[in-house]
Amino acid sequence: MKKMVYYFGKNNSEGGADMKALLGGKGANLAEMARIGLPVPPGFTITTEVCTAFYANNKNYPEGLRDEVNANLRKIEQDMGAEFGNQDNPLLVSCRSGARISMPGMMDTVLNIGLNDRTVEGLIRRTDNPRFGYDSYRRFIGMYGDVVMGVKFRLFENILNEIKKRRGLRHESELTTDELKEVCRRFKDVIARATDAEFPENPEDQIWGAIGAVFNSWNIPRAVTYRRLNHIPEDWGTAVNVQTMVFGNMGPTSATGVAFTRNPAAGEKVFFGEYLANAQGEDVVAGIRTPQPINKAQKSDPEQVSLEELMPEIYQELSKYYQKLENHYKDMQDLEFTIQEGKLYMLQTRVGKRTGFAALRIAVDMVDEGLIDKRTAVTRVEPEQLTHLLSPIFDPEDKKAVLKKGRFLAKGINAGPGAASGKIAFSADRAFQMANEDDSVILVRIETSPEDIHGMAASQGILTAQGGSTSHAALVARGMGKCCVVGCNALNIDYDEKKMTVNNVVLSEGDYISLDGSAGEVINGRMDTYPSEIAQVLIEKTLKQEDSLLFRRYEKFMTWVDEIRDIGVRTNADTPKDSSVAVSLGAEGIGLCRTEHMFFEGNRIDSMREMILAENKTGRIKALNKLLPMQREDFIGIFKAMNGRPVTIRTLDPPLHEFLPHTDEELEELGEKIQVDAEVLKRKARSLREANPMLGHRGCRLGNVYPEITRMQARAIIEAAVAVKKEGIDVKPEIMIPLVAELREFENQRKVVNEVAEEVFKEENESVDYLVGTMIELPRACLTADRIAEQAEFFSFGTNDLTQTTFGISRDDAGSFLPFYVAQGILPWDPFQTLDFIGVGGLMKIGIEKGRKTRPDLKIGICGEHGGDPETVKFCRRVGLNYVSCSPYRIPVAKLAAAQEVLEKE
Amino acid sequence: MKKMVYYFGKNNSEGGADMKALLGGKGANLAEMARIGLPVPPGFTITTEVCTAFYANNKNYPEGLRDEVNANLRKIEQDMGAEFGNQDNPLLVSCRSGARISMPGMMDTVLNIGLNDRTVEGLIRRTDNPRFGYDSYRRFIGMYGDVVMGVKFRLFENILNEIKKRRGLRHESELTTDELKEVCRRFKDVIARATDAEFPENPEDQIWGAIGAVFNSWNIPRAVTYRRLNHIPEDWGTAVNVQTMVFGNMGPTSATGVAFTRNPAAGEKVFFGEYLANAQGEDVVAGIRTPQPINKAQKSDPEQVSLEELMPEIYQELSKYYQKLENHYKDMQDLEFTIQEGKLYMLQTRVGKRTGFAALRIAVDMVDEGLIDKRTAVTRVEPEQLTHLLSPIFDPEDKKAVLKKGRFLAKGINAGPGAASGKIAFSADRAFQMANEDDSVILVRIETSPEDIHGMAASQGILTAQGGSTSHAALVARGMGKCCVVGCNALNIDYDEKKMTVNNVVLSEGDYISLDGSAGEVINGRMDTYPSEIAQVLIEKTLKQEDSLLFRRYEKFMTWVDEIRDIGVRTNADTPKDSSVAVSLGAEGIGLCRTEHMFFEGNRIDSMREMILAENKTGRIKALNKLLPMQREDFIGIFKAMNGRPVTIRTLDPPLHEFLPHTDEELEELGEKIQVDAEVLKRKARSLREANPMLGHRGCRLGNVYPEITRMQARAIIEAAVAVKKEGIDVKPEIMIPLVAELREFENQRKVVNEVAEEVFKEENESVDYLVGTMIELPRACLTADRIAEQAEFFSFGTNDLTQTTFGISRDDAGSFLPFYVAQGILPWDPFQTLDFIGVGGLMKIGIEKGRKTRPDLKIGICGEHGGDPETVKFCRRVGLNYVSCSPYRIPVAKLAAAQEVLEKE
Repeated sequence: MKKMVYYFGKNNSEGGADMKALLGGKGANLAEMARIGLPVPPGFTITTEVCTAFYANNKNYPEGLRDEVNANLRKIEQDMGAEFGNQDNPLLVSCRSGARISMPGMMDTVLNIGLNDRTVEGLIRRTDNPRFGYDSYRRFIGMYGDVVMGVKFRLFENILNEIKKRRGLRHESELTTDELKEVCRRFKDVIARATDAEFPENPEDQIWGAIGAVFNSWNIPRAVTYRRLNHIPEDWGTAVNVQTMVFGNMGPTSATGVAFTRNPAAGEKVFFGEYLANAQGEDVVAGIRTPQPINKAQKSDPEQVSLEELMPEIYQELSKYYQKLENHYKDMQDLEFTIQEGKLYMLQTRVGKRTGFAALRIAVDMVDEGLIDKRTAVTRVEPEQLTHLLSPIFDPEDKKAVLKKGRFLAKGINAGPGAASGKIAFSADRAFQMANEDDSVILVRIETSPEDIHGMAASQGILTAQGGSTSHAALVARGMGKCCVVGCNALNIDYDEKKMTVNNVVLSEGDYISLDGSAGEVINGRMDTYPSEIAQVLIEKTLKQEDSLLFRRYEKFMTWVDEIRDIGVRTNADTPKDSSVAVSLGAEGIGLCRTEHMFFEGNRIDSMREMILAENKTGRIKALNKLLPMQREDFIGIFKAMNGRPVTIRTLDPPLHEFLPHTDEELEELGEKIQVDAEVLKRKARSLREANPMLGHRGCRLGNVYPEITRMQARAIIEAAVAVKKEGIDVKPEIMIPLVAELREFENQRKVVNEVAEEVFKEENESVDYLVGTMIELPRACLTADRIAEQAEFFSFGTNDLTQTTFGISRDDAGSFLPFYVAQGILPWDPFQTLDFIGVGGLMKIGIEKGRKTRPDLKIGICGEHGGDPETVKFCRRVGLNYVSCSPYRIPVAKLAAAQEVLEKE
Repeated sequence: MKKMVYYFGKNNSEGGADMKALLGGKGANLAEMARIGLPVPPGFTITTEVCTAFYANNKNYPEGLRDEVNANLRKIEQDMGAEFGNQDNPLLVSCRSGARISMPGMMDTVLNIGLNDRTVEGLIRRTDNPRFGYDSYRRFIGMYGDVVMGVKFRLFENILNEIKKRRGLRHESELTTDELKEVCRRFKDVIARATDAEFPENPEDQIWGAIGAVFNSWNIPRAVTYRRLNHIPEDWGTAVNVQTMVFGNMGPTSATGVAFTRNPAAGEKVFFGEYLANAQGEDVVAGIRTPQPINKAQKSDPEQVSLEELMPEIYQELSKYYQKLENHYKDMQDLEFTIQEGKLYMLQTRVGKRTGFAALRIAVDMVDEGLIDKRTAVTRVEPEQLTHLLSPIFDPEDKKAVLKKGRFLAKGINAGPGAASGKIAFSADRAFQMANEDDSVILVRIETSPEDIHGMAASQGILTAQGGSTSHAALVARGMGKCCVVGCNALNIDYDEKKMTVNNVVLSEGDYISLDGSAGEVINGRMDTYPSEIAQVLIEKTLKQEDSLLFRRYEKFMTWVDEIRDIGVRTNADTPKDSSVAVSLGAEGIGLCRTEHMFFEGNRIDSMREMILAENKTGRIKALNKLLPMQREDFIGIFKAMNGRPVTIRTLDPPLHEFLPHTDEELEELGEKIQVDAEVLKRKARSLREANPMLGHRGCRLGNVYPEITRMQARAIIEAAVAVKKEGIDVKPEIMIPLVAELREFENQRKVVNEVAEEVFKEENESVDYLVGTMIELPRACLTADRIAEQAEFFSFGTNDLTQTTFGISRDDAGSFLPFYVAQGILPWDPFQTLDFIGVGGLMKIGIEKGRKTRPDLKIGICGEHGGDPETVKFCRRVGLNYVSCSPYRIPVAKLAAAQEVLEKE
C-alpha cells in the first residue's frame, strides 16, 4: 500500500489543492492553505484509497494504517505543544469526512475527540472555564454516542429537554456547569443502556471509533442516494480529516466567522463577511445572537461593532490571507476562520457560491484585473444564472423598506428567478380568469399538476406549499422563465375557503402578495416590479446600452461566449413579436415555429372548425382558403422579424379535436354560430375523440390523409417568403414535417410542398430557396433515419415527444409516478427537463449516425424544450448537432452552455 | 447484350423451369412443358433483362432485339405451318406478361395478334366460321385499342351495349356476324377519334405495339402498388411471352378446361377438373354455361357429360400429361388446356392452390408415395392453413342441402376460417348482451372498430359489409381465430331499423344466419356447427386418435415440424382451461399469463375496487389480502394444467382506472354497494383518469408506487408453486415485470418478489426454483437492455406496446389513418399484425444484442400478438429468440412457421 496519511500544518504540508481525488476537497484545500503559509490548525488526512480498500477488504483497514495515524498524531502534538489524552494539556481533535466532491451534510462528523473525565479537567484548568469544559464534553459524548455508537440522538435530546423543562429554561446555553455535568453523566448512562457498551474513555479508542464511523457513513442510505442523484461513483470513497480543535468561544479574545473575498450578491470587489465574538459555529446557526459585520464598510448601523474595529490586527492579518487566497485560487473564495484567544486560524477555503449578477461581474472584473483569461471567465458563470439577469426585479430600496415594515411572510425554495407581485388565486382556472380581467396574479397551490399549466402561464408568479426544486411547479416555472417559490411549508392553504394562513397572517383570494423568486421569499402586499436592467436595454429599449454598466459587462461576456461557441442557437417562436424578442436576445434563427398556435387567435378558430367539420375535401378547401391569407400575414411578419435568418416552420401537428370545444354546451353554442345542427357537431366531436391523443391522428398523419391542409400551409409559407423577398429582405424558410415514422409519409408531404412551391413561383414569377425537412420525434424515425435522410433536407429532434415515446410516458399523466421516481432515485432526473442521455440520447445518436450516413452534411438540430437546458445543450454538441433551439429567454443560457462544453472538451 | 429471346416449341425449348428469374414464371413453365414433350403451342419469351434494359435506356429496346424476335417468329411459323400476316393461313399469337412471381391481373395481355381486315378472312376460310372470325377480330381490336393505344375500354363497351339494346339482346354471344362486323368497324372509328391514330393493320406493328404495352405495364400504378405491397423489387422486370393462339371454340371437337392433379379441396389423389366444349376461357368466367366434370368419377348428376366420355382419347392423353407433370414438378399442379379441332394443347401449368385440408393431405401422401421427403412436405403447407383444421365446421351434407334450398345469401371475403351460426346483432353492445343471455351471436357491422372488440369476442362469427382482408374485422377475427366474412358488399345494413337487406331478403336483429368463413359464404337461417375433426380428437376428446385419418396425418405432419423446428412455442393463456387447451395443441409453456384478467371475474372486481379506492397502504393491503387466495387458486390450476412446463406470469399491467366503472350512475351504484360516498368515488375516478392511459400510470409503475400489489401477486404465485410442488407436480414459475423502461424500476420489483419468496419458503419449509424477468416493450428498455440484463433473468418482447411506442401510434386510435396508410402503400402492412421488421424489429435486435452482451445465455421470447403471425415467427427465429408465445389456436401455425424458417435458411 502506498502512503495512506498526509499531514498538514505549520509549513509542513504533504498534500495540496491538486490532490482532491486522493485527499477529498476539504483535505486538499486544508493542505494547500497550510502549504502557502496560512495558519491552519494542524492535522492529517487519511486518503480516499484507504476508504476503497476498507470496503474492498470487508471493512478492515489496510495494514500499517494504525502506525501512520499514530505517527501523524505525534506530529500534531509536536506542532501544538499539547498531548492527546494528557490530563494537563489535552490535545482535542475533530474527525470529518471529505469526498472529492462536496456532499454537504451527507456524512458524519465527530468533534472534541480526546475529552474524557480526566482531560476535561485539564481543559478547564487551561481555559479557566468549567462551563466551557463541560459543555464541550457533553456535546462530544452526545455526538459520539449518536455517530459512532448508533444511539438515537432523540434519547440525548430527551434528557436535555427534561432538565430544561424542570428548570423552565428556553435554551441549552442557560444550563449551569453542574447541570452540564449531570448531562454528561446521564448521556453515558443512556449509551450504556442502549448499547450494552461503555462510552470509551480512552482517547485512542475514541479516534478509531470516529474514523470508522466516517468511513462507514460513506455507505449510509442518505449518502448512497445523494451519490446516485448526483452521479458520484461509489468507488471514489471519502477521505477522513483529523484536525486539531480550535475554539472561538474561549473568551473575549476569541471569535468565529465566515467571509467572502468579494460580495457574493452583487459581485463588487470588497471583502465581505460576518463574525461572532466568543462563539462557536453552532451559535451562528442557532440564531440566538446576531452576527456582526466584518469591516467598517459593511456596517449598516452605528451600533454594530465590526471585527476591523474590535480586533484591528487580526482583521489586518485576515485581509492579507483573503487576498492571498483569492490570488492563489484565482476565484472568489468562501472562508471560515476562528480566533482562539487572540490567535487567528483558517479552517476552510472553497470557491464561493454567488448570484448570477455576482458571477457575471466577478468573471468580467477578474479578466480586467488580469487574474484570469476570457476562456476561464466563461466557465465562471453557470448557464442557469443568466436567467437571473433577464428576470423582472424589485427595487432594492423598496425591498429593504418592505422588510423593515415586517411584511416578510415566509421563505421557500427559490425555484424560478425574478420578482413578481399580484393577487392571490388558489386555482388555475381562477388565475386564468383573473389574468383575463387584466389582473396580475400569483397562483398559490399546495402543489401543481399538469392541469394547472394554463393558470401557471397566465400568472406572474407561482407559489407552492409543497415540493422541491424538481417539483412540477419548479420545472414548469423554470421552463417558462417564471418567478416561482416552492416548498414553502409555512403556508396553510384552504382551497374551500379560498384562504391561506402564513405565520398567523390570513390572506384571501384577491389579496396581494409578492414573491422574490431569486431569494425564495414571500412578502405580504403589493410591490412594484421592474424589467431587469438587461431587459430594459435589450427588450424594452428604455435604457441605452452605454448607460448600463451591467449590460456592458453582459455584452462583453456574451461576446466571449460567442467566440468560443461552435454550434448554433435558435429559438422557438410562433409570432412576429416573440421572434423580435428572440433576435434581441441573440437568436440565430427560428428552430420551431408552431403554426397551429396561430389557429387559436380570434375568428381563425371558426374557419379551422369549419374545416374540421366539412363533409368533404371541397368543404375543407373552402375553409382552408379563409385561413390562407391570415397564415401568410403571420409568416410575413415572422420572416421580416428574422431578417434573413433561417426560419423552421412546422406544419399542423395537434389532433383536430383539440380545435373543437369539449362540452356539450359549447358545442351547441358553436352549432348556432356556424349554422350546423348541434347533434351533428356532437357526433363529429365524438368520432374525433381519441383514447390516446398523443399517439393518435396528428402530425403528418393529418397531412397525409388531408393533403389539402399541407397544401394551404405550404402556400402561405411560400407566398409569404416571395412577398418578403420582393421587398428586398432576405428569407430562408425551412418547412418541417412533424411526427414522421416512415419515409413515405415524409415523401408524400414533401411532394405536396414542392408542387405548391412550383405553382407559387410560377404565379409570382419569383422564387426563393427553401428546405423541406422533418422532425425526428419517434423512435422509428431514429431507427430508419438513413431512409428518411434520402428525402429530408434537415432533421430536428423533437425531444418532448421522443421522450414520451421512448419511455412510454405521457407527460400529462406522469404526475402520479414521475415525481416519485425522481425522489426515489429510480430516475436520476426528470427526463422532460434534462434529456435522458442513455435512452432518448441513445436513439438520437442512432438517428444522427444513420442520417449522416445517407447525407453526410445533414443539418440537425433540436427543438424540444430540452434545447434550453444546459446539460442537454452540452450533450447536443457532443453528439454533433448543428444547433439547438429554445424559448427566447433561454437563448443566453443555451449559448453559455454550448461554449462551456467547448472548453470542457479542450 | 446476351441472348434476349428464348424459344419454346416442339421438342425445342431453349429455357426451363429453373430459369424463372430470366423468363418469368409463365415463360419458364411453358419452356419446361415443351422440353419434357408436352404439346405446348409454340412461342418465345423475351427475357426480364430486356425489360430492365428497356427502363434503364429511357424505354428503348436493346439493339438486336428486333432481329431476335423476328427470327423466333419465323420458327413459330415453321412449327405451325402458318404465316404471320398471311391472308390464307394466318398465324395468330398472344402476348402476355410473366414476372418472376405471379402478379395476377396486374399487367397487360393482348390476344389474337395478327388479325386484320385481310387475315380475318383467311381465318374464316380456314375455320369455315365467319362468326368466330369476326368475334375474334372485334375482341382483338377492343383489347388492342385499350391496352396498346390507351382508349378507355368503356368506349368499346358503349358500342356493344348500344347494339345489344337496339336488338334487345342479353349477351354478346347473341350478336350476328354482321353485327360483329359493324362492331369491328365502329371500334376502329372510336380508336381513330380517341387517339388521332389508326388501328394498325400491319401485324408486325401490332406485335411490337403489344410487346411495348406489356413492358410499359410493368410500371402502371396498380402494378407498382402491387409490387410495393408484395415486396417485389422494381428491377426484377417482367418477361414477355409471345405464343401461338389456339382456340377451344372452333367447333364441336374443340374445348377448353382447367384441372388439378389432385383434389384442391380435400387433397385426395384423383384427377380433378372441369371443361367446356366449344368454348373459350372467357366463357367460363362469364358464367353463362355451366362447366362439365372432367371425368366420370366426378359426375354428380347423370345428365353431365364428362370429357372422359366425350373425348376419351384426348382424356387419356391429358391423363398421361397430368401424371407426367406432377411427377416432374413433384407437387400438385393446376393445369390449363385447350382442345382445338381434336388436338390437345397444354397452355399452362403451375403449383395448384389448395385448402388447408388438401395441403396437409397432399404433403403427407406425397411423402408416403416417395415423391418428396419430409422436409419438403413441411414447406408444402402454409402456416395459416393449419387454422382451418381447428375451426368449427358445417356438416358437408347439411351445407349441400341448405344451398339447394336457396338459403345462400351472399359471398364476401373469407377472413376468418371455420363455420358459425347465430342470431344477428347489429352492435357490439347488443352482441355482448345477447351472448350473456346464452345466445349464439353473429355480429353484423358495416365495418368494425376497436370499440367493438368486446362484442366481437362474445360472438360466434363476424360479418361486415365493407373492408378487405386487412380490415379491422379481419385482423381481429384472425387473432381470435374467429369465423369471419368481410367486404360482403351485398349487405345493406340499417342500424337504426336494426335490419339488413341481402339480395332482397330482409333480416332483423335476432334472426339466424350462418357463415362459412373458409368459403366466405353467408347463409340464411340456422345451421349446426361441429368442432373440427382435429378439435374433436385434441380438445373435445370425443373422437379417438386412431379413428381419425385426418388426425393421424396431422400428427405425422406436426412430428416432422417438431423435428425440424429449433425454437420454442409457448402460449398466451390466463386460465387453467386455456392452459389445458394450449397443452393439447402443443404448447411448450406459457409465455404470457395476464393476471389482471383474473380480477374482472365475479366479486373479485369488488376487492380490486376496494384496493384502488383505499385511503392508504393499510387499506390497500386489506383489500389485496382478499384477492390473494383467489389469485393463488388460479395459479395452482394453471401450474397443474402446465404440468412442469414453464409459466411466465406478468404482474399487474393496466392502469387502475380500468377497474372502475365509467359512468356516474355506475359509480353511484358501486358507492352504495361498498358503502363509500358517491362523490368521493367520482372524485377518485376523475383523479385517476388519464389523457393518454396507454402511456400512463400502469405496468411496473404501479408496482413501484404501490409495492404491496406486487407483494400480493408474488405471494400468490410462490404459494401456489409451493403447494403444487408439494403435490409432487413439477412447477417452473417465471415472474415477469411489465413496462420496464429503466433498470431500477425492475430492480425494485425484483427485490420485492425475492423478499416475498424467501418469506414463503420459510413459512412453508419448501422452496421452488423461479425466475424474475421483464417484458421488453418500450424503446428505452431495448436501448438499455445491457443494464436491465444485469438483473433480469429473462426477456420477453411485448411487441404490441413496442409497436405503439416505436411508431407513436395508439392502436385504439389508428383506425382514422392506418388502413389508409396500408391501402396507399405508405406502410407495406399493418404493423400490429405482422411485425415492422426495420423499425420495431430494429429495436428488438438492439435489445437482444445488448441483453446478451451482459448475459450471453439470456432467454428471450416474444409474447405480443405477433407471436402467432408466421412472418413474425420467422423473423423471431432469424434474430435469435428462444421462443415465441401465441394464443392457443395459433400454436400449430407458429410451429410450422418456425420449422419453415429453418428449411428456408438451409
